[in-house]
Amino acid sequence: MEIKELGEFGLIERLTKDIEIKNPSTLKSAGDDCAVIAGNSDEQTLVTTDMLMEGVHFDLTYISMQQLGYKSAMVNISDIFAMNGTPRQMTVSIALSKRFTVEDIEDFYSGLRLACDKWNIDIVGGDTTSSLTGLAISITCIGTARKEDIVYRSGAKDTDLICVTGDLGAAYMGLQILEREKSVYYQQIREIQAKYTDKAEQRKQIEMLAFSPDFAGKEYLLERQLKPEARGDVIETLRKAGIRLTAMMDISDGLSSELMHICRQSGCGCRVYEKNIPIDYQVAVTAEEFNMNLTTCALNGGEDYELLFTVPIGDLSKIESLEGVKMIGHITKPELGQLLVTRDNNEFPLKAQGWNHMA
Amino acid sequence: MEIKELGEFGLIERLTKDIEIKNPSTLKSAGDDCAVIAGNSDEQTLVTTDMLMEGVHFDLTYISMQQLGYKSAMVNISDIFAMNGTPRQMTVSIALSKRFTVEDIEDFYSGLRLACDKWNIDIVGGDTTSSLTGLAISITCIGTARKEDIVYRSGAKDTDLICVTGDLGAAYMGLQILEREKSVYYQQIREIQAKYTDKAEQRKQIEMLAFSPDFAGKEYLLERQLKPEARGDVIETLRKAGIRLTAMMDISDGLSSELMHICRQSGCGCRVYEKNIPIDYQVAVTAEEFNMNLTTCALNGGEDYELLFTVPIGDLSKIESLEGVKMIGHITKPELGQLLVTRDNNEFPLKAQGWNHMA
Repeated sequence: MEIKELGEFGLIERLTKDIEIKNPSTLKSAGDDCAVIAGNSDEQTLVTTDMLMEGVHFDLTYISMQQLGYKSAMVNISDIFAMNGTPRQMTVSIALSKRFTVEDIEDFYSGLRLACDKWNIDIVGGDTTSSLTGLAISITCIGTARKEDIVYRSGAKDTDLICVTGDLGAAYMGLQILEREKSVYYQQIREIQAKYTDKAEQRKQIEMLAFSPDFAGKEYLLERQLKPEARGDVIETLRKAGIRLTAMMDISDGLSSELMHICRQSGCGCRVYEKNIPIDYQVAVTAEEFNMNLTTCALNGGEDYELLFTVPIGDLSKIESLEGVKMIGHITKPELGQLLVTRDNNEFPLKAQGWNHMA
Repeated sequence: MEIKELGEFGLIERLTKDIEIKNPSTLKSAGDDCAVIAGNSDEQTLVTTDMLMEGVHFDLTYISMQQLGYKSAMVNISDIFAMNGTPRQMTVSIALSKRFTVEDIEDFYSGLRLACDKWNIDIVGGDTTSSLTGLAISITCIGTARKEDIVYRSGAKDTDLICVTGDLGAAYMGLQILEREKSVYYQQIREIQAKYTDKAEQRKQIEMLAFSPDFAGKEYLLERQLKPEARGDVIETLRKAGIRLTAMMDISDGLSSELMHICRQSGCGCRVYEKNIPIDYQVAVTAEEFNMNLTTCALNGGEDYELLFTVPIGDLSKIESLEGVKMIGHITKPELGQLLVTRDNNEFPLKAQGWNHMA
């Protein structure tokens, strides 16, 4: 169905009609000039926002609209967890060109709602509009946290342990695989174009050529790239274990880049041990296949959405007893710099060559 | 300066370095995973968001980056006032293609900050990223209001008076003028292209041809289109006058369309008197010039960002004593429909042919 058949208000109604409110603090959802959220003096409000542009942040050749909705939501939810908060509300703005159908948006929303339902978040408003070219997405997530629970990037102290959740580099390797398969796909299209001079026949042949490469054995990497998970589960585990976090952020631009943010904002240095960086074996196998340096992938590959945090050295035994959390180094005095200690005990300054989409 | 010379973080630092915090509730601004805002049980939080896409919502042929920043902010601020709230914080996301320079973004931010300074709003975060084509802007504004002060669209009651602030149709007529001058400009470009066969000479001639039409006598219309003002001043006046608002919204898509929202959400009808609709004489003169129906312009022209509200009939004398507020009709029982009463006392159903950017 074409979007113009429904119009803006018809579309919004269709997308939001059966949404149930999950937070008592959501007093008024979409349908007025503003959403209304209850005030609470015991808690502070957290606000984060992210914009995702077609061709820059995602490629619809290989991510589905549903996956894109899910990922767009998770990327924002991850920022709330990275402050040790609880996500509560979300606003969602999308601008679409004419090539998108009502069904496309419904798919996007179904992914979005899957992510929001997972973390009991209310979609309270947004904007649905048109774009001349491609798809633009802007999401704002609102969360809450008690003042004493909020964890900033600036609280790391000398001797604190540096920890990460999950494993690193998988989302980046997933992207490499998808990009490779995409070039194969486009190569096939060019071959068809060369082979068939008749335009109608060309079109027919191209339509028959679906993008459906064989990803056997690479499922984990693809899932990490296409369906990332915000680590609210770890936040819960850390709370239960009574671990006192001194600094935290989520890893979206790569471990090196994020570590340097923490060091700069906390006024400290760090030592990270290459051997401790958690890496899935599929990442190792694929890096080999692509002739890439594994540690570089894990340090600078972005979009893992794992948590990077620091804890006092006294919490070492607590951290060691937790599954899915790995101690990778420690905080030092600022004058010692930000160093990577390699497997053969050499030291190199960390470089934030992370994903710079402005370059 | 090219944006890539600064990179994302350099650019953000340059844009935000000398911003002073104006609200005590702004506890943490840009620089972490989230902004942090103090909780307050006496007040509810209002959230509104808007997305503006180049070529759909604005045309950089005739709006400057500074005006665009100002307008993008005001459009969102207007929604907070439309709930009878006070705007407090704002997040700003922009996606830019390569043709934009650092100076362009600085101009955009200067306009944005002008608007925020006017209403004491803190810019607490956002996202700065790249786009393949054109400029995309997404702004979220956060405000506060005491529970008992919030005015929804749904509170209008039979016999309530319908009021609007300022005058209507001017922003729309401003757009008509700008669009006309733009076609003249493009016509001149086509003439140069026809006249000079040498490409270098063509380019030189086109560069010399700046878009600088003579707008004498139309200044008010252009200002309404390019530099709209959110009517926080009227909100203040209404508070001081002790007027009890029953329903309110801002006029962004045209009076007809907004009135129908209020009627639908309040479950009522309305009668609006053509003779009472406030229209500036420049709008009248220009509608004549364009051979357009004046009332249609005032009813359906969008982007006025005036306030539309209803008050109990007992407040009539208070309303009449206020400058810049006009009573244009009254609310009726739903079965009476939504009617426009013309100057010659005919009745027509109101039509929301307002600006539908999805059509």
